Amino acid sequence: MLHSELLEKLFAGEPRAVARAITKVENGADDAAKIMKAVFPKTGKAVVVGITGSPGAGKSSLVDKLALFYRDRSEKIGIVCVDPSSPFSGGAILGDRIRMQTLGLDKNVFIRSMATRGNLGGLSRATVDAVAILDAAGFDKVIVETVGVGQDEVEIVKTADVSVVVLVPGMGDDIQAIKAGIMEIGDVFVINKADRDGVLRTEKELEALLSLAHRPDFWTPPIVKTVATENKGIEDLSKAIKSYANFQNTGEASLERKRAIARWRLLELLREKLLSNLLSKNGTAEKLDKLARAIAEKKNNPYSAIEEILK
Amino acid sequence: MLHSELLEKLFAGEPRAVARAITKVENGADDAAKIMKAVFPKTGKAVVVGITGSPGAGKSSLVDKLALFYRDRSEKIGIVCVDPSSPFSGGAILGDRIRMQTLGLDKNVFIRSMATRGNLGGLSRATVDAVAILDAAGFDKVIVETVGVGQDEVEIVKTADVSVVVLVPGMGDDIQAIKAGIMEIGDVFVINKADRDGVLRTEKELEALLSLAHRPDFWTPPIVKTVATENKGIEDLSKAIKSYANFQNTGEASLERKRAIARWRLLELLREKLLSNLLSKNGTAEKLDKLARAIAEKKNNPYSAIEEILK
Repeated sequence: MLHSELLEKLFAGEPRAVARAITKVENGADDAAKIMKAVFPKTGKAVVVGITGSPGAGKSSLVDKLALFYRDRSEKIGIVCVDPSSPFSGGAILGDRIRMQTLGLDKNVFIRSMATRGNLGGLSRATVDAVAILDAAGFDKVIVETVGVGQDEVEIVKTADVSVVVLVPGMGDDIQAIKAGIMEIGDVFVINKADRDGVLRTEKELEALLSLAHRPDFWTPPIVKTVATENKGIEDLSKAIKSYANFQNTGEASLERKRAIARWRLLELLREKLLSNLLSKNGTAEKLDKLARAIAEKKNNPYSAIEEILK
Repeated sequence: MLHSELLEKLFAGEPRAVARAITKVENGADDAAKIMKAVFPKTGKAVVVGITGSPGAGKSSLVDKLALFYRDRSEKIGIVCVDPSSPFSGGAILGDRIRMQTLGLDKNVFIRSMATRGNLGGLSRATVDAVAILDAAGFDKVIVETVGVGQDEVEIVKTADVSVVVLVPGMGDDIQAIKAGIMEIGDVFVINKADRDGVLRTEKELEALLSLAHRPDFWTPPIVKTVATENKGIEDLSKAIKSYANFQNTGEASLERKRAIARWRLLELLREKLLSNLLSKNGTAEKLDKLARAIAEKKNNPYSAIEEILK
């Protein structure tokens, strides 16, 4: 496919062109930058929803049901799943297959797992690029779901228009453990599996924690109760998402947030590009292997080694 | 404190010198590289134990009890807790205080949370450096505990001599969700809160998953059942850790693993150093702010922007 043809089909929302473009940005293909330069001006129409929470909170079911809800209202939905596990065992591909069965081969629902994190890093950057591609391809909602709950995942979800944090009842004192990092990125909170014992307690604890948080935009995050497997509470969730999206568009904080995201993206891109420029130089890869060997044998140390490389 | 004095006290295991050196590597101080060059040759004596698992699995209690177990056998223990949440709200500091109460102000137990991840990244690198400092300071065991479960956290735990993955009963199908990434890094598995229902089922599921895994070293990871809050199963865990540490030292795979870790450390250091070199150039920070502003207003795009910066 020629570059112009790929872009034309991408902007027309053709799934194959979208998939191809995402693969290119994921792999850091030669024309990835060219694609993203064309894509960027066409972005900004989609509502990007980031969904995170601890493993076992039922995020996937919730995302699937939310996607179906939007689809039934004639919207086009893109789902980007950040799954750092896959480089080890192809977990993402399996995950995709299972989910394709649930959501069917519906042309209004596009699902993609992002997993490649090579030497150069770049998973966060590639994920944010994939979201931009779906946005430019005319998807009305783009849902970014993270499987892990770490630093990278938190940063990715922070780039969404609306960040949803999913909890389950009965986490008890453990809610404290995930408090800080995840709590403060949530624009909307979901207590999923709300048919289980302990919902009220979890809700009270969550309210108490949220009342302590100081949001620069003075937004009070709503708490939505869902039972995703039974499709309960999904409409409430969609309303909560919409209300924050509306709030954010009118707020002063919006441009400030966009600047912070742009700055983060620039640093991510720079980090990756600087390393790839260095590694593409003749002999650097061999030098790296040799130095790694010397360090493993305690004949050198990492700090002296990078001075040698950068010399 | 002079450089030579700091190093002397560090190698003597003085907590204040250790803390100071870690702060220096965390902040990327001017003399951080100098310290690490001196530290590196003195490393390799400690057994480094990485502990990960989903939030709510009771990792902190388990780490505390394990540390007390070692301490009661006259060992010196360092605990490095990777807590990405703290930049948002100082959660790590709070966590440290709570844990200092549990473990007391015992001079044979040193606890430190790593949280700073600035513009330059470097949390993974700083954590691995902190472990090396504790190793060089004469701590017999260094436990690295991650609060998050993401890409960075998985990579950090992979640098340990023994990686322990903590699960809880009753995760049901959700065990699938965390399967790939976390499962494949575990040298030892713990089912904590083993007084709860569903232990047997979780154990069976785990055994089934592990039987599918192909480890290059042909090690079969043991499964240990614990109730950390009641101090049950801690000795079994210590035995499982010891058996893998022994196995690893004799195996062929050991040097290969050390090389892979050295390579990863080099890339992490390079990534950080290249970016810091660029940002320290006159005017780059201002240029970055200006470009981030233009991107937020859609007057520029990230890919064109980094070309401008790198020009």
